[in-house]
Amino acid sequence: MRDLNGDDIEALAVGAWILGTGGGGSPYHGLINMRRLYRQGTRVFLMDAQALEDDDDVAVVSNMGAPLVSQERLVDSRLTARAVELMQEYLGRRFRGVMSIEIGGGNSIQPLMAAAHLGIPVIDADAMGRAYPEAQMTTFAVGNLAPAPLTSVDPRGNEVVVTRAADWKWVERTSRKICTEFGSVAATCKAPRRGIEVKRWAIHGTTTKAIRLGRAVMGANRRHDDPIDVILEAERGKRLFAGKVIEVERRTTEGFLRGSVSIEGERRDRIQINFQNEWVVVWRDGAPLATTPELICVLDSDTGEAIGTEMVRYGQRVTVIVLPAPEIFLTPRGLELVGPRAFGYDIDFRSAFAS
Amino acid sequence: MRDLNGDDIEALAVGAWILGTGGGGSPYHGLINMRRLYRQGTRVFLMDAQALEDDDDVAVVSNMGAPLVSQERLVDSRLTARAVELMQEYLGRRFRGVMSIEIGGGNSIQPLMAAAHLGIPVIDADAMGRAYPEAQMTTFAVGNLAPAPLTSVDPRGNEVVVTRAADWKWVERTSRKICTEFGSVAATCKAPRRGIEVKRWAIHGTTTKAIRLGRAVMGANRRHDDPIDVILEAERGKRLFAGKVIEVERRTTEGFLRGSVSIEGERRDRIQINFQNEWVVVWRDGAPLATTPELICVLDSDTGEAIGTEMVRYGQRVTVIVLPAPEIFLTPRGLELVGPRAFGYDIDFRSAFAS
Repeated sequence: MRDLNGDDIEALAVGAWILGTGGGGSPYHGLINMRRLYRQGTRVFLMDAQALEDDDDVAVVSNMGAPLVSQERLVDSRLTARAVELMQEYLGRRFRGVMSIEIGGGNSIQPLMAAAHLGIPVIDADAMGRAYPEAQMTTFAVGNLAPAPLTSVDPRGNEVVVTRAADWKWVERTSRKICTEFGSVAATCKAPRRGIEVKRWAIHGTTTKAIRLGRAVMGANRRHDDPIDVILEAERGKRLFAGKVIEVERRTTEGFLRGSVSIEGERRDRIQINFQNEWVVVWRDGAPLATTPELICVLDSDTGEAIGTEMVRYGQRVTVIVLPAPEIFLTPRGLELVGPRAFGYDIDFRSAFAS
Repeated sequence: MRDLNGDDIEALAVGAWILGTGGGGSPYHGLINMRRLYRQGTRVFLMDAQALEDDDDVAVVSNMGAPLVSQERLVDSRLTARAVELMQEYLGRRFRGVMSIEIGGGNSIQPLMAAAHLGIPVIDADAMGRAYPEAQMTTFAVGNLAPAPLTSVDPRGNEVVVTRAADWKWVERTSRKICTEFGSVAATCKAPRRGIEVKRWAIHGTTTKAIRLGRAVMGANRRHDDPIDVILEAERGKRLFAGKVIEVERRTTEGFLRGSVSIEGERRDRIQINFQNEWVVVWRDGAPLATTPELICVLDSDTGEAIGTEMVRYGQRVTVIVLPAPEIFLTPRGLELVGPRAFGYDIDFRSAFAS
């Protein structure tokens, strides 16, 4: 158990935004919440997943919805805490700690906000190792753990518990419709996990990893090193393409942000990237160059900072890189849940590192 | 407390279908369920609302959704019972009895099915005195009683509890989206009521009234009397129009069945009726002839049996009648919730009995 200081949280926001692969929502508003809470004297502690007892209860939180909307309806740290409290009321038990469903983007900060209000530690782990758009796209679903209950709350005082779901897809379908009706954004507490489940199925150390990545980028910028080189080296990534954004097509539908972006290189060559909240497939000349579950990251070519699917715009100079996927998602069950076919693309996964 | 016999239930189905004013879903499939349960020896008891203790808990049930879909996905009596059980689990208390949110249509039978499985009586009351399409269109909303919690279940095993709602409209919005995702039909248990609330705010004796109305129609048909004359006399109704259905426009959207029907009289004069699950406004030459909350009933001109908005079709010979509305819905708060403006029509309520 160690306490997170203010610099850790600043670095977490930068690192998690990169791991968000375009989605997970910008960490910026969460960061502002945490700065305020830290000024007020709050401190948040980070706990290793391995330190959990087998029968500890762990809350799993996320802000659900379309990233664009999160830019318009600002995050209230108490709302995430309320989703956890509602789950405690429903279960009649108290949580030992709180973790994020996804380390990518703003959802990396959600457990910190809940932890600050509830006085419990953040567990250093998540269930995606990045961000994904749908609730069934997790290591917990790979492990066939129980998909329910789930709580969903909005700032008006609307609160729902999905007490049972036929399967993971149904918990996503039902909670997505609720989230859409709440205005395409809701604070949710996913199916609670026992310590033994977190130890067996979560991806460990991802909060620490995001902080380390953020520190590397911030350090490179201070030293005027190339931050993208630093990221590629630190995370064993691969540079795919660099150029200028020449076209963005974007729409908010059914609680998601969907669309595509075109990028033109110096030699007039082009790539196109499709997204559903997160970057899903990179195409060149009609052939896939990289796909989920590998992490497709679109970075500002100068600063190395991530650019979200809701932020990308004409004229930006960007570099597209790929980072390796957690191995659990490269299994047949993993690819079934998060491979390109899970997003509606009729192509098989092929590692961008293979070529 | 009296036990309902098989003839009572047959009559209830006929009477409630008339009080459904086109909606509430056909009672037919519910009736088939009850016939089977009665053949197996089940008996259901009817209890006066006045016999409730102030602090008794009463379940309020309904099948929510688009009537057309209820014709395709058949009613399972255990599903309604499951919605009540889920509410009992959530509350940690057992119900003294079960009532319908609406006496109109198939929802008149829902509490009988729940009662049969749970071994508790049906309370002789409802919260509409007819059928309405939306959850906030009740005497309980007129009384500003708590709109939540609400449970919603589907046959796949999906179960949701709306634990809190900002207001009555929000419990409708949220549960409607859940119902839509479940396939535009779900078994629901609405906000539970205390005995004192049922005694003060429910419309009493409506199960008995529907049985009496059904018996009158069935008796008239046996005696070859005009059943419509019998209905108008028994319920102090008014005959509006008789003719042939010449056009039906119908669509299932957002969990509702919407559309309009045109009827031509013997002298080539025409009326048009708009519906949202239930008949809402009768028009002649662009002027409203009758509107909600008065009960607009489209009846088979020969048998006096009701014709639902999902059943009405070209060529049917129909008689349109109006029955008086419960007085509580003629108050300013009542009209705000169920008057023509609540359905999106820019007209004031004016009684069809006034002209």
